[in-house]
Amino acid sequence: MQFATRLDNVETSAIRELFKLLGKPGIISFAGGFPDSAMFDVEGLREASQKALAEEPGGALQYGATEGYEPLRAQLAAFERSKGVADMEPNQLIVTTGSQQALDLIGKTMISPGDKVIVEGPTFLATIQCFRLYGADIQSAPIDAQGVQVDRLEQLIVEHRPKFVYLIPTFGNPSGALLSLERRRRILELAVKYQVLVVEDDPYGDLYFGEAPPPSLLALASEVPGSREWIAHCGSMSKVLSPGLRVGWLVAQPELLAKATMCKQFSDAHTSTFAQATAAQYLKSGRMPATLRNVRQKYAERSHGMAEALKRELGEAIEFTEPKGGLFFWARLSGRGGKPTHAGEFARRAIEQGVAFVPGAPFFAKDPDLATLRLSFATADVDKIREGVGRLGRAL
Amino acid sequence: MQFATRLDNVETSAIRELFKLLGKPGIISFAGGFPDSAMFDVEGLREASQKALAEEPGGALQYGATEGYEPLRAQLAAFERSKGVADMEPNQLIVTTGSQQALDLIGKTMISPGDKVIVEGPTFLATIQCFRLYGADIQSAPIDAQGVQVDRLEQLIVEHRPKFVYLIPTFGNPSGALLSLERRRRILELAVKYQVLVVEDDPYGDLYFGEAPPPSLLALASEVPGSREWIAHCGSMSKVLSPGLRVGWLVAQPELLAKATMCKQFSDAHTSTFAQATAAQYLKSGRMPATLRNVRQKYAERSHGMAEALKRELGEAIEFTEPKGGLFFWARLSGRGGKPTHAGEFARRAIEQGVAFVPGAPFFAKDPDLATLRLSFATADVDKIREGVGRLGRAL
Repeated sequence: MQFATRLDNVETSAIRELFKLLGKPGIISFAGGFPDSAMFDVEGLREASQKALAEEPGGALQYGATEGYEPLRAQLAAFERSKGVADMEPNQLIVTTGSQQALDLIGKTMISPGDKVIVEGPTFLATIQCFRLYGADIQSAPIDAQGVQVDRLEQLIVEHRPKFVYLIPTFGNPSGALLSLERRRRILELAVKYQVLVVEDDPYGDLYFGEAPPPSLLALASEVPGSREWIAHCGSMSKVLSPGLRVGWLVAQPELLAKATMCKQFSDAHTSTFAQATAAQYLKSGRMPATLRNVRQKYAERSHGMAEALKRELGEAIEFTEPKGGLFFWARLSGRGGKPTHAGEFARRAIEQGVAFVPGAPFFAKDPDLATLRLSFATADVDKIREGVGRLGRAL
Repeated sequence: MQFATRLDNVETSAIRELFKLLGKPGIISFAGGFPDSAMFDVEGLREASQKALAEEPGGALQYGATEGYEPLRAQLAAFERSKGVADMEPNQLIVTTGSQQALDLIGKTMISPGDKVIVEGPTFLATIQCFRLYGADIQSAPIDAQGVQVDRLEQLIVEHRPKFVYLIPTFGNPSGALLSLERRRRILELAVKYQVLVVEDDPYGDLYFGEAPPPSLLALASEVPGSREWIAHCGSMSKVLSPGLRVGWLVAQPELLAKATMCKQFSDAHTSTFAQATAAQYLKSGRMPATLRNVRQKYAERSHGMAEALKRELGEAIEFTEPKGGLFFWARLSGRGGKPTHAGEFARRAIEQGVAFVPGAPFFAKDPDLATLRLSFATADVDKIREGVGRLGRAL
């Protein structure tokens, strides 16, 4: 059977191969990218789903508008307003089947084969593959602990004239990096100066451990004249409430939103109204603030636990900046003390010791740094994290 | 903003424009393509969703496998086996976000820009648009009340060497036509002879009014050696249980299924596990046979009511074959007695009389028949159907 030529641009991920080894009994996994099921507010979601079916069974079970279930759009607009997005109205967003679909719709709507797209190096693996399926030629802008390096980004924009720039500014996956306020402003200025769309993927912004992070690019756009129309913002309920609902959203200027809606109509018609009505009832119930407090506190404990254990067990053989939120440590093998610098090799030895993580190389669209790795602290408690990091130390 | 060139291939549907007029108070609509909300088994779905959350909250709320929630794949395989599909195993299908997504994944996996695809004329509008977004050059094979005309289909296959053939063999949308058993066998033989993929879209096959229809192409493939690998089958819970769950499935040979799964990974990661776990519990509960009996009986009454009313009120000005299942009448204005033959004009006059339907022209990928129209009997009861058809008579 002859498949579409677009499939030639993607390959089965190296990470998936690694995941097959995770079935080994007793393994401690820092490899996942998912939240801890034990933190899901099952009772709150049970009540919300019951209310959805009791109050408006037709709305929850019938076909719905491609743009999304109106009560949910209203709740999500209010949620964004509560995070500082000025004048956010329900018709400025559409509900998507997870934020993965928002990325897919942006790809479908914007990318012609051969178009340039700039992403962070490293960035979310599924985004790279998603955009490549639409024929994107992906360029990579370097990052540091303050997020993407804006001078390099500007050079790349001038050089490549990309269709858009894709960023995870807040607690990035895999970088854990937090884009500084000053860099956020400069990126909005670049968007206006070069008339280039900036796609802000923000699934982790609510998962901060201390102070709240700087405002999202979307929120900050009101301070940089002309920038709002150049920002597309992808939100998600997956990391804070439940990935299984598959409820995300896309905020964009009207013309782009209309095109994305048309593409969505032919992608899945609409997101599950049952899931949407459940999410709407949940947000309406007022339980979200307590849920957010709970996940922030638990993930903060785990993150601190991992930072301490890494320093104690691996010492100067590993370099990292402790994240201020999100789910991930991004680290680099320094090679000091004659220790290994190849994270793929290290991952194999770690599995033998009963602990798993993901090497960093696949997260780079170009020029992978083979010494990097991603560690998730999301799904193990602090004791398990200490035990797992101890095994990492033995593997190194 | 400059969008992707693929958007040049599609346009906002004429039907959508018509739908804007449906808000008029007191209008009776035969225009929709959706089932009647009043038939949804809300209590059964409530229990199923509760069980899903009680028995396996992690499975229902966490990220899940792209291929689908295993208990649902097992239930769907059993459902297909109960309809005569030999040796159907769970790993031969993936769960999709409605069958619309199955079509989207087939488009993404199979169609390179410029590839030929053959569909029925008329066929499901969203399929035409979905495939065109991937750059398909769509050819149209004529139908009659026995479904697609196989001799013409074979000529078109020889002439165009299509990437695949897309059919709705059982109670097609908009045609209501039922492909005969003999034609089904011949199509399977054509698939083998020309090594061409045949995509069978089957959302209506369970909605029969009298005898069960002939087996699906998928089921019949076991009788035509070598044909099973050339059949992709799209199933759906939308018309029989609830569209709002967005639970469909795709059956295909292993290589195609693996490619479609990869594409799905970057489209929406997976279908809502909450919706999937609810559907799995529903199928497990044993309520489905009674639900099917109920919808078959009610839609049969409505279909008979519409047939009688059309004969009485419109007489020889309209031609149609009474459907044996599904949700639609496909009709043609004969022009006899000096009556109009332009269904678009007629639709506008009907709206003035307080009744709506969809003109047939947009359902043709090529050479539209302007005298055709689609009438859905799904959402009005028999009294409303009689009243609505009376208004049609006055409009004509």
